[in-house]
Amino acid sequence: MAFRFEVVKKDRFSQARLGRVETDHGSFTTPAFLPVGTQGTVKSLTPEELVEIGVEAILGNTYHLYLRPGHETIGRLGGLHTFIHWERPILTDSGGFQIFSLGSLRKLSEEGVTFQSHLDGSSHFLTPEKVMEIERVLGPDIAMVLDECVPYPSAYEYVKTSMERTSRWARRCLEARRETDPALFAIVQGGIHRDLREESAQTLVEMDFQGYAIGGLSVGEPKSAMLDVLEWTTPLLPESTPRYLMGVGTPEDIIDAVMLGVDFFDCVLPTRNARNGTLFTSSGKISIKQAQYAEDGKPVDESCACYTCRHYSRAYLRHLYLTKEILSSRLNTIHNLYYYINLLLKIREAIQEGRLLDFHQSQTASRGLETEFSGHFQST
Amino acid sequence: MAFRFEVVKKDRFSQARLGRVETDHGSFTTPAFLPVGTQGTVKSLTPEELVEIGVEAILGNTYHLYLRPGHETIGRLGGLHTFIHWERPILTDSGGFQIFSLGSLRKLSEEGVTFQSHLDGSSHFLTPEKVMEIERVLGPDIAMVLDECVPYPSAYEYVKTSMERTSRWARRCLEARRETDPALFAIVQGGIHRDLREESAQTLVEMDFQGYAIGGLSVGEPKSAMLDVLEWTTPLLPESTPRYLMGVGTPEDIIDAVMLGVDFFDCVLPTRNARNGTLFTSSGKISIKQAQYAEDGKPVDESCACYTCRHYSRAYLRHLYLTKEILSSRLNTIHNLYYYINLLLKIREAIQEGRLLDFHQSQTASRGLETEFSGHFQST
Repeated sequence: MAFRFEVVKKDRFSQARLGRVETDHGSFTTPAFLPVGTQGTVKSLTPEELVEIGVEAILGNTYHLYLRPGHETIGRLGGLHTFIHWERPILTDSGGFQIFSLGSLRKLSEEGVTFQSHLDGSSHFLTPEKVMEIERVLGPDIAMVLDECVPYPSAYEYVKTSMERTSRWARRCLEARRETDPALFAIVQGGIHRDLREESAQTLVEMDFQGYAIGGLSVGEPKSAMLDVLEWTTPLLPESTPRYLMGVGTPEDIIDAVMLGVDFFDCVLPTRNARNGTLFTSSGKISIKQAQYAEDGKPVDESCACYTCRHYSRAYLRHLYLTKEILSSRLNTIHNLYYYINLLLKIREAIQEGRLLDFHQSQTASRGLETEFSGHFQST
Repeated sequence: MAFRFEVVKKDRFSQARLGRVETDHGSFTTPAFLPVGTQGTVKSLTPEELVEIGVEAILGNTYHLYLRPGHETIGRLGGLHTFIHWERPILTDSGGFQIFSLGSLRKLSEEGVTFQSHLDGSSHFLTPEKVMEIERVLGPDIAMVLDECVPYPSAYEYVKTSMERTSRWARRCLEARRETDPALFAIVQGGIHRDLREESAQTLVEMDFQGYAIGGLSVGEPKSAMLDVLEWTTPLLPESTPRYLMGVGTPEDIIDAVMLGVDFFDCVLPTRNARNGTLFTSSGKISIKQAQYAEDGKPVDESCACYTCRHYSRAYLRHLYLTKEILSSRLNTIHNLYYYINLLLKIREAIQEGRLLDFHQSQTASRGLETEFSGHFQST
């Protein structure tokens, strides 16, 4: 499959880059946020709504789709794009994060990982080669290598052993990859240890992947540790390939990580928060269930142009949330995803116009927050 | 508020009529099916989707909206149309059906009905005058009188006593009605007893309402009893006002009732069935969760032009249902409502073209069903 990444512009004051990804299913600009479509649907929305919001690419979860409905079923029905009626780029994770979240339900060896399905307890054995086969059949535009995502905190020795195995698994994925397969991204591991992150990055870069993810973050470590890892890692990754920070994060995390050189993000935060009634606004988060919104005729955010803010009051959204109406999840998800997509749009405009540092500061100020970033930025 | 009903064409072979309703929120053609928006939302859909499906008017439930968020809140936020972002006609029921479904939680007197909220047990007292006030504040285009919906079966004496009180309550509603209020429809009661239905209809018609509903059906009586009641009742209602069969029904019920002179329908069947994975097709109902659809790449109904059938396979709909995804309810609801709206469209075309009897027979044949209607039709 075709895959091309081009850095369009580099920021003068930070590691941020404006980029463009081209795939067989169209192109998208970076830095980009990919909404999570775990089970073949970005929860509650149609593909047309995602397009209207401005979403250019989404993520699918290999672990979930492998278990249900099964990658072979999806393959027989024309592949993931056709199955879910999404014509734009898709990135699939490898299932590593989900499998290693199973705890006692999985067992690891050099060959691969045995785990029990969270659905029916059935036993499964996945190897790097098998994951490549599953992703090939799903047919995304970008596939991820099988990795081990180590919990935080873990002993240094375990993190080292695991990172080295993840690198060996990455090589096996690369060797199993066929010319016609999706683009393949490696995943840098190494916990919060500088030497391990550096070793991981260097080893993987020598193998020459089409992109590099930074994994094993947003698993409970302090935010400063996450920024440390990015600061150590991104300079070791090739300028010419995309950098993907997996499973991150808050709007603040995203701005900070962009300034440290990250190009792709995915996170369930906007969609999950939406279903829980937590909405992002230009002046911070609000919880729509609060009594103060009972007769509030204003939109969620008066400066927002999303479908929800154009047509519905906070009072109606509160009513839908309290009555557990399905429309509540939909309208909240549209708003939160629009907030994220629009945030990334503003970040790209700021890079284009050479004012990302100002944008970072104005965002921090408008939320009345001190981010932990300042120190990191000054030291880079 | 403006309200006008015009019979555009009468069917030669049955009691069916083609009609047109005009309101301050636009017009709609009859026979019409009004999807149910219990809590201020037709479950899972946006107003724009309803319009795309072809919905011209919807129903709101006074009982639910009175309890939550409260009619006064809705009034302060601009009325029901504004609150829920639906610009077309709305009919609100009176809450009678819901209150009388509460069983031991309510207590009846000549003055009105005391009941406990199903939400928090709080006590409420509703009179015909109070219901008129609530509906006035909600601001629909059509309001219903407060009635008692008698269970099936009930003793003749109780049905008679209740029907007479419902008529007295209807008069009080009419007396409480103001010039600027929504159009007011009375509700014919009387169980399955011909003399009581006739007395109810005659008494209410003398009061001169803007429309008449037939209530107390689809509460467990045999279908033949429902058709009997319609056959007795509709000829006693004015030709010049709409007739509304409350809470009915299956596609077969609707065709039969149209032939017996009914103009409006509302029912939760298409929307509730959708959420339970039961889908209407031109060859009968299907349950999308069945294993036979696991790799079925065909749409729900190859002859259907709805959004769901244009873009998604039975296999994907089955997957969404089994994974309990919100999109499952949405796509299924779109399909089922489209089926109903399209059925009514075909009924109207058949009346227009003088071939309703043929249409009735072809519908029966395509489902391989004997309906109970034939006998009823021949006897009219």
